[in-house]
Amino acid sequence: MGKEDGRDQKGVTVKKSENFSEWYIQALTKSEFIDYTDVSGCFVFMPAAYAAWQAVTEAVDSRFKADGIEDVYFPLLIPEKLLLKEKEHFEGFVPEVAWVTQSGSTKLEERLAIRPTSEVLMYKSYSRWIRSWRDLPLRFNQWNNVVRWEFKHPTPFIRTREFLWNEGHSVFATEKEAEAERDVILKIYQDVLRDYLALPGIAGTKSRKETFPGAVNSYSIEHVMPDGWALQGPDFHSDGQNFAKAFEIKFLDKDGNSQYAFQNTYAITTRELGVMVAVHGDDKGLILPPKLAYIQVVIVPIYRKEAVEAVRKAVEEAYRLLKRNYRVRLDDREGYSPGFKFSEWELRGVPIRIEIGPRDAGNGKVIIVRRDTGEKRETNAADADKAVAETLELIHNELYKRAETMLKSSVHAADGYDAFKKILFEKGGIIHAPWCGDQACEDKIKEETGAKITNIPFEQEKNAAKCIYCGKEAKEAANFAKSY
Amino acid sequence: MGKEDGRDQKGVTVKKSENFSEWYIQALTKSEFIDYTDVSGCFVFMPAAYAAWQAVTEAVDSRFKADGIEDVYFPLLIPEKLLLKEKEHFEGFVPEVAWVTQSGSTKLEERLAIRPTSEVLMYKSYSRWIRSWRDLPLRFNQWNNVVRWEFKHPTPFIRTREFLWNEGHSVFATEKEAEAERDVILKIYQDVLRDYLALPGIAGTKSRKETFPGAVNSYSIEHVMPDGWALQGPDFHSDGQNFAKAFEIKFLDKDGNSQYAFQNTYAITTRELGVMVAVHGDDKGLILPPKLAYIQVVIVPIYRKEAVEAVRKAVEEAYRLLKRNYRVRLDDREGYSPGFKFSEWELRGVPIRIEIGPRDAGNGKVIIVRRDTGEKRETNAADADKAVAETLELIHNELYKRAETMLKSSVHAADGYDAFKKILFEKGGIIHAPWCGDQACEDKIKEETGAKITNIPFEQEKNAAKCIYCGKEAKEAANFAKSY
Repeated sequence: MGKEDGRDQKGVTVKKSENFSEWYIQALTKSEFIDYTDVSGCFVFMPAAYAAWQAVTEAVDSRFKADGIEDVYFPLLIPEKLLLKEKEHFEGFVPEVAWVTQSGSTKLEERLAIRPTSEVLMYKSYSRWIRSWRDLPLRFNQWNNVVRWEFKHPTPFIRTREFLWNEGHSVFATEKEAEAERDVILKIYQDVLRDYLALPGIAGTKSRKETFPGAVNSYSIEHVMPDGWALQGPDFHSDGQNFAKAFEIKFLDKDGNSQYAFQNTYAITTRELGVMVAVHGDDKGLILPPKLAYIQVVIVPIYRKEAVEAVRKAVEEAYRLLKRNYRVRLDDREGYSPGFKFSEWELRGVPIRIEIGPRDAGNGKVIIVRRDTGEKRETNAADADKAVAETLELIHNELYKRAETMLKSSVHAADGYDAFKKILFEKGGIIHAPWCGDQACEDKIKEETGAKITNIPFEQEKNAAKCIYCGKEAKEAANFAKSY
Repeated sequence: MGKEDGRDQKGVTVKKSENFSEWYIQALTKSEFIDYTDVSGCFVFMPAAYAAWQAVTEAVDSRFKADGIEDVYFPLLIPEKLLLKEKEHFEGFVPEVAWVTQSGSTKLEERLAIRPTSEVLMYKSYSRWIRSWRDLPLRFNQWNNVVRWEFKHPTPFIRTREFLWNEGHSVFATEKEAEAERDVILKIYQDVLRDYLALPGIAGTKSRKETFPGAVNSYSIEHVMPDGWALQGPDFHSDGQNFAKAFEIKFLDKDGNSQYAFQNTYAITTRELGVMVAVHGDDKGLILPPKLAYIQVVIVPIYRKEAVEAVRKAVEEAYRLLKRNYRVRLDDREGYSPGFKFSEWELRGVPIRIEIGPRDAGNGKVIIVRRDTGEKRETNAADADKAVAETLELIHNELYKRAETMLKSSVHAADGYDAFKKILFEKGGIIHAPWCGDQACEDKIKEETGAKITNIPFEQEKNAAKCIYCGKEAKEAANFAKSY
């Protein structure tokens, strides 16, 4: 789908800082990272997007497996009666369920839900599979697609009617073991966010109000988008014995006593690709973190009449050398100027561009250009492999550092409610503020400002000891923000 | 899900040769390779099954990518009006479509089909994406789940309402290029079947009657199941310009003329896991080919009072040594006899069992036992790594050879219609017989014997020159069989 004679090549036409939401859509579509279809609220993952998701799943999955988690696959469709079994959990999903009511021209006897999540189906099986302490822990995970028919304005990756994710569902004999899993999983998610997506996040506990239906405690990693709104990333839910009681997931302990098991659930979704694009991109388009970049290096020859052969030879040599270790594209399309090609690969977010012109070819040099900073570095062609490795690492590290700086500068402390509102309305971002722990205050703040508690971060800053809203003694400091 | 005190351990209770279909279900469920749920016609891929499918997808996907095929992901749901666009293609799927008609409590304005296959959705996009010869070839593939609401008796992997697969959809500028892709894709499928699943197959062209709706020619790799029925494996369809015309997939050639493109589609599905289980298993249960085996080696200690410590040390050493290169399980569960454990791992199809008892520990030996033959081999503990590598390779090669011998012995030549019927009813399998190429004969044979043409194999045996049915001059020899 290269650009074509008759077709305009247009980069992103709005500035990220001026109109983030329009920039986001243009950056995604013009770079051919995604495309729309006739299916409302859904979209196509183009090769670069799907490759990035594959890399995320491989990174997460290998860490899951190293920790003893096993992958399974449960059916897409869930009979209605099963969904009604755990009403508290399911109620939140009811308005969003896509129902299959017909097969061919036959009306089904019972409606089938396309899974919005698989608790009920999996736990029905778990209750049959688990009999004794010997069957525990049971730690199964699925990589699949789910459908939630949201009616809010859909946004690719961020809010879509179908998305891809992992859903982990563990069962333990004791509360202590179940709780120990939380740190393991959150660390895996944070490691992959940092090491692959170059994204930081704020880990913490959800407030009671924001806890997942059916869970005892929910935990999340929260991002801040460039528009100052927070966005929830991966999450982890301690279910206690709630589902175990609803689904009769019991086991005989070593003494022969029947006990309810303890459960956890956790997920990372394709939403992260949206955060990655939003946080790293710039006015020229995407900037893909090197490990997830579908193409890591693009080589663009700059031909001049006098040295076509020398340049051709040099680019081919560079291509041969680099393709052993990197995902490299040699852009030798005819009929396009180097400048046109530069813009296209910048739009697509390829981390490194290598330029080779007649003078470089003559001197055995190549020019390495960084997508993130535009910085150019001349290096000997023979050393290109090493230089590319260093540059990719540098880009990754600096993307992360930049994202971390942005995140930190988006978190503000507030000691009083006036200051809170001033920061929220003037700067946006997350406000770390003391809270009494009472839902009444949380509700009031939401009502008056639109900000909710994203989470109560594990890392607490020292704050005043009085609740930002009611002035009573604060239990902890919570993070408040307007949130996607 | 280990077996438990209160629970019977029962192996497969029927012989594969006596009651194949019952054996197949028992082998799959008792080994915990799959399990059923409340969803009719669907089932759970347990860890060993899902791991095998992951290994198949990785093997196929890496070969696809090396050939320039890119992965994408299109939405699960397809609006009805799009499906009606290509009626000839879609007609066959209509009775099997699962329709989403409601979201939450709201009736949808337009019904949405859960994809039974994605041609219509993808090709609508292709018609927008492809403008000129520069955009070609376009070779996209998806790994996803599809739903076909079949009403025939469901059989895990073989006939299920949801299955997992790849769907490749390529577009080329010329018929010649499109045709060249066929051999590449069929070779990839055959290589992976041989090198991972240890399965042979018979490649050939489908008869006109059996050609995929919308395709010009269909090609398949056919298996023979232990009950003598044929089963279609991976397939490839040359679509010519049929879809291009229906979806207006046109491009400007180098001379500026507008032309319809040429397309192919191809797929391998989770059905192959069923073939793998059916072909390799025996009366004790599964026999998993080493490369797809979730656990490749199980180490079972044989404790005797006098040498518990020595045995424990020896098994732990073997485990440490082997786990660097293989997927190893150390079965040190207490309360189970070695014999119980042997049976369980045999049922699950683990290719190699290593036994270490007091005498072995004392002599620095281990016993390597092959799942496929039961053969035992004593080796120095220090050489276990090499011995395991050799044995796994041997098992793979012999499983393949055995399957190939079975397949070959299931293919019979017939020169006359009486001989044809005699072989079909007495032996089953595939009958390679001369055919005039006329659908009337194909229909009659189907009607009278139940056998259809599986394919017209690329490798033709010399046969009599007269059509098996009408006696007119034969165009070629076709493979006839009763088929799943």
